[in-house]
Amino acid sequence: MGKEDVGITVSKNDDFSEWYTQVVLKAKLADYAPVKGLIVLRPDGYSIWESLKNTFDKKFAKNGIRNGFLPILIPESLLGKEKKHFEGFNPEVFWVTHSGTNKLGDRLALRPTSETLAYTMYAKWIQSWRDLPLKINFWNTALRAEIKATKPFLRTSEFLWQEGHTVHATQEEAEKEVMEILEIYKHTVEDELAIPVTTGKKSEKEKFVGAVHTTTMESIMPDGKALQMGTSHFLGQNFSKPFEVKFADKDNVEHFAWQTSWGVSWRLIGAMIMVHGDDKGLVLPPKVAPIQVVIVPIYKNDEGKDKVLPKVNEIKENLESKDIRVHVDDRSELSPGYKFNDWELKGVPIRIEIGPKDIEKQSIVIAKRYNLEKSSLGFTEVEKISVILDEIQVNMLKNAKEQAKTITIDISDYQEFKSKIDKGGFFNAPWCGKIECEDKIKEETGAEIRVIPFGSENENQKCIFCQQKSVSVPIFARGY
Amino acid sequence: MGKEDVGITVSKNDDFSEWYTQVVLKAKLADYAPVKGLIVLRPDGYSIWESLKNTFDKKFAKNGIRNGFLPILIPESLLGKEKKHFEGFNPEVFWVTHSGTNKLGDRLALRPTSETLAYTMYAKWIQSWRDLPLKINFWNTALRAEIKATKPFLRTSEFLWQEGHTVHATQEEAEKEVMEILEIYKHTVEDELAIPVTTGKKSEKEKFVGAVHTTTMESIMPDGKALQMGTSHFLGQNFSKPFEVKFADKDNVEHFAWQTSWGVSWRLIGAMIMVHGDDKGLVLPPKVAPIQVVIVPIYKNDEGKDKVLPKVNEIKENLESKDIRVHVDDRSELSPGYKFNDWELKGVPIRIEIGPKDIEKQSIVIAKRYNLEKSSLGFTEVEKISVILDEIQVNMLKNAKEQAKTITIDISDYQEFKSKIDKGGFFNAPWCGKIECEDKIKEETGAEIRVIPFGSENENQKCIFCQQKSVSVPIFARGY
Repeated sequence: MGKEDVGITVSKNDDFSEWYTQVVLKAKLADYAPVKGLIVLRPDGYSIWESLKNTFDKKFAKNGIRNGFLPILIPESLLGKEKKHFEGFNPEVFWVTHSGTNKLGDRLALRPTSETLAYTMYAKWIQSWRDLPLKINFWNTALRAEIKATKPFLRTSEFLWQEGHTVHATQEEAEKEVMEILEIYKHTVEDELAIPVTTGKKSEKEKFVGAVHTTTMESIMPDGKALQMGTSHFLGQNFSKPFEVKFADKDNVEHFAWQTSWGVSWRLIGAMIMVHGDDKGLVLPPKVAPIQVVIVPIYKNDEGKDKVLPKVNEIKENLESKDIRVHVDDRSELSPGYKFNDWELKGVPIRIEIGPKDIEKQSIVIAKRYNLEKSSLGFTEVEKISVILDEIQVNMLKNAKEQAKTITIDISDYQEFKSKIDKGGFFNAPWCGKIECEDKIKEETGAEIRVIPFGSENENQKCIFCQQKSVSVPIFARGY
Repeated sequence: MGKEDVGITVSKNDDFSEWYTQVVLKAKLADYAPVKGLIVLRPDGYSIWESLKNTFDKKFAKNGIRNGFLPILIPESLLGKEKKHFEGFNPEVFWVTHSGTNKLGDRLALRPTSETLAYTMYAKWIQSWRDLPLKINFWNTALRAEIKATKPFLRTSEFLWQEGHTVHATQEEAEKEVMEILEIYKHTVEDELAIPVTTGKKSEKEKFVGAVHTTTMESIMPDGKALQMGTSHFLGQNFSKPFEVKFADKDNVEHFAWQTSWGVSWRLIGAMIMVHGDDKGLVLPPKVAPIQVVIVPIYKNDEGKDKVLPKVNEIKENLESKDIRVHVDDRSELSPGYKFNDWELKGVPIRIEIGPKDIEKQSIVIAKRYNLEKSSLGFTEVEKISVILDEIQVNMLKNAKEQAKTITIDISDYQEFKSKIDKGGFFNAPWCGKIECEDKIKEETGAEIRVIPFGSENENQKCIFCQQKSVSVPIFARGY
C-alpha cells in the first residue's frame, strides 16, 4: 500500500489540530483544492452533508418553508444598501471585475450572504397580506475570503450552507419563526450528529451585523474551544425599511414587514469529526454514516470462500431489506487486518466479521466503532442490528454530553478564570450586561461571550469582571 | 388584483418569445436578478429542478455514481492546462481579481465547467486499478458570461446543472459509460418531462472542446428551433495526459486513464415550458408538478361551506395517502373563476371543483390542464385520479411527439431547404461528412448539424450541399 493508506499518526490528545486534519484527509472526506483556503468534498464527505440536507428539508417543509435559488453575483451597490451589514462583510468579499476581456462597469461581489439580494426580490414579490408569510430557504455556498489559516469544514473561503429568509406580517410571528428554526437546528444536531448544543442569545457585540438580535447554538469541542453551530436572526425591520419590503394589510394600509434569516453550514461536519473521532480515525453516528455496516468475509482458500460468501450475502440482503446501508468488503489480496483498520479509519459504525469458524458456530462477530467493543451474535439474532445502531446513536450523544460536562466550569472569580482559560472550556460566568466588561474580558483572556443561554438571566450574582450586579450568566470561551 | 396577476396577454403562436417570458414570470417560476443575465428561481421553479435532481440521483446511484462538491474558483493557470478547452471558454469567463481591498496575485475564474479542477484532484486520488472506475457527479452552477439577450432557463450567465466526471481503466469501459449516461438522460427527459429527444453524435465542428467525441440529445421546440438537452462526452485521454490522471495496473505498469464528462442543466425546464405551455400559461407534466391536484371548493354562504368542506378534506386526505401532491385553494374573497385562471396559469395538471350541487350528485368535476377537458367523477371513483395522472403524463409525451413530427422534414434538395429554413424545423438532410459543406450550410442558412442520429449512417444518398456520396443523414436546424 502507498503512503496515503497509512492510518492516523498522531494522538488526538497530543496534537489535536494535526489529528483533525489527518482524519479529514485520510478518511477521504475532503481534500485541499488548488486555491488556498478552498476544499473539495469527496463522496464520503458530501454524503454526510446530503444526509443533513435531507433531514433539514423534511423539517423545513413541515414548517411551511420551500427552497429557491439565488445567483452568486451581487452588485456592489446592493450590498451597501444596509450600511452596517455591508461594513461587516466588506474585508472578506471576493470581487469580480472582468468577464472575458471586458472590464465590468459595476463590480460584482461573490455572495458572502444573501440578505440584500433576497430582499430586493422579496420587495417585488410581496404586495399584500396574502403573500405572507413568505418563507424560502436556499442551499448554496457563501464566499468569505479567509486570511487566517484554513481548516477543512471549519474555516474555508467558500463553504456549503443553507440560508433561510422569511418575511412576516407581525413582529410576534417573526420572533416565533426565529425560535422554531433554532429548535429544528438543535434537534437535528443532537439527533443526527449526536452533539449536544447550548441555545441562547448572542450579546449585542457578537450578534449578526444587521440583526435586532441573534439566537445561536454553541458546542464545546474536546480541545476546549467553542464552535458556533448555527444561528437564527431576528432582523426586525432593519432590512425591510431600506429594501422596502412592504405589504398592504387587510385594511389596505401599507406596513414594513418583519424578517428573519438563519443558517447552518458544513461546520457541523467539522464538529462531528472533532467530538466523536479517536486515535484510529473518524467515528460516524449511524444516522449520517454513508455505510452503516461493513461486512468483512474471512477465508483463506476457495473452500472457505464457498462456505462464507453465501452467508455474507444473506446477511447483506437481510439488512438492506431493513433500509440499513451495508457494504461487503470483498477486495482480494488485502488482509482482514488491513481492512479492519481501513474501515475503522473511515468510522463505519458496525463491522461484521464472518469466517468458516463463525459459520460452524452459527454466529457472527460484531465490532462497534464508537467504543471498539466486540461481541458475537447468533445467526438468528441478525435482526437486532438495527436496534444496535439505534443504541450506538443514543450512546454517542450521551458520551458527548458527558465529555462536554467535564469541560464546562461554573466560575465567579476572575483570577481563577484567567488561570484556567488557557486549558479551554465553557465558563459559566456572571456578567453585568455591559459591553465594557465584555471587551475587557476578551482583551485580557481571548474569551468572548459565545451564548447567553435561555433561562440564564440572574440578578443575584456579581459580574465576574466589575463585581456589579449581574444580569445573566453567559458562557465565555475561546472560539474557532 | 394588481396588474401582476393578469394572465398571459399574447398568444403562443403570435409572439413565441414574449409568450415564453410571460409564462416564466407570471407562473412565478423565476424572476430577473439585479445583475443582467442572471435569474432567481422561485419555489415553484426550483421544485421542478429538485424533482429532476431526485430522479437523476436515483439513476446515477444505480450506475455507481456518487455526488461530491467542487469549489467555484479555479486558478487561471489550471484552466489553461488543456489549451483548446481553455480557448473555448475564455471569452465567457468571469474573473475574480480582488478579495476585500487586496489584489490577488493569480486571477481566479468562476467555474465555467470543472474538468480542469476535477482532474487535478483525480490525479491525486487515483493510484492503482483498485481506485477505478471513479465516478463522481457534482450538482452546482456554472458561470459563462452571456453577451446575447438573456432568456430565463435558456440563456443565463449562471445556470444550475449537474456535471459528472468519470475515470476508467479502459477505453471500452469509458465509451460504455458515455452511452449509459445518455440513456439515463433520454429516459428521464421523456418519462419525467414528456419531451421526445433524438440522440446521436455531434459533428467534429460542434463537439465539446477537449472531447474525442460528444454524444447529445436534441429536441425541436414549437417555434422550429432546436434545443440541446444534454451532452455526454468521451474525453479519451485528452485530459488524463496533461493532468496526469494515471493508474498502476495489476501488472504494476502505469497507464493514462480514460475519461468521460456529461451534463444537463435547467434548460430542461425551459424546454418543458416551451413544448407543453399554451395561451393560458404553463402546463406541467404530473411527475414534476409541485402541486398535482388542486381542489377548489365552491360555495356562497356558510351553509354551502359546511356541506362542501368536509368532503374536500376527505378527498384531500384520500389523495395524499396515495402520495399525490394536493393543494386546497380555500382563499376567501376570491371568485372560483379567478382561482381557475390562477391555477391554469400555473399549470397544475388536475383541478377538482366541488360545490353543493356536486355534493348532491355525489360527484366531483375534474378539469385536466393539458387538454382543458372537463368531466365528472363519482365520489366512489376518486381512486382513479392516480390513473388519470399517469394517463396525462403518457398523453403529453404522445402529443409532444406528434407536434415534433409535424416540424421534422426529410429533405435532399438544397434550394428547397433554403426556402423552408426560415420557418424552422428539424431537417433530415444527407451529408458527405466534410466540414466545408457543414460550414457553408451554416453560413448560408444559419442551420447547423444539431445531431447525427445513431443509425443514420447512409452511403446511398448524395450530400445536400456538394452532391457527393453521403456518409450520414444528420439533423440540421437553427438552434437556441
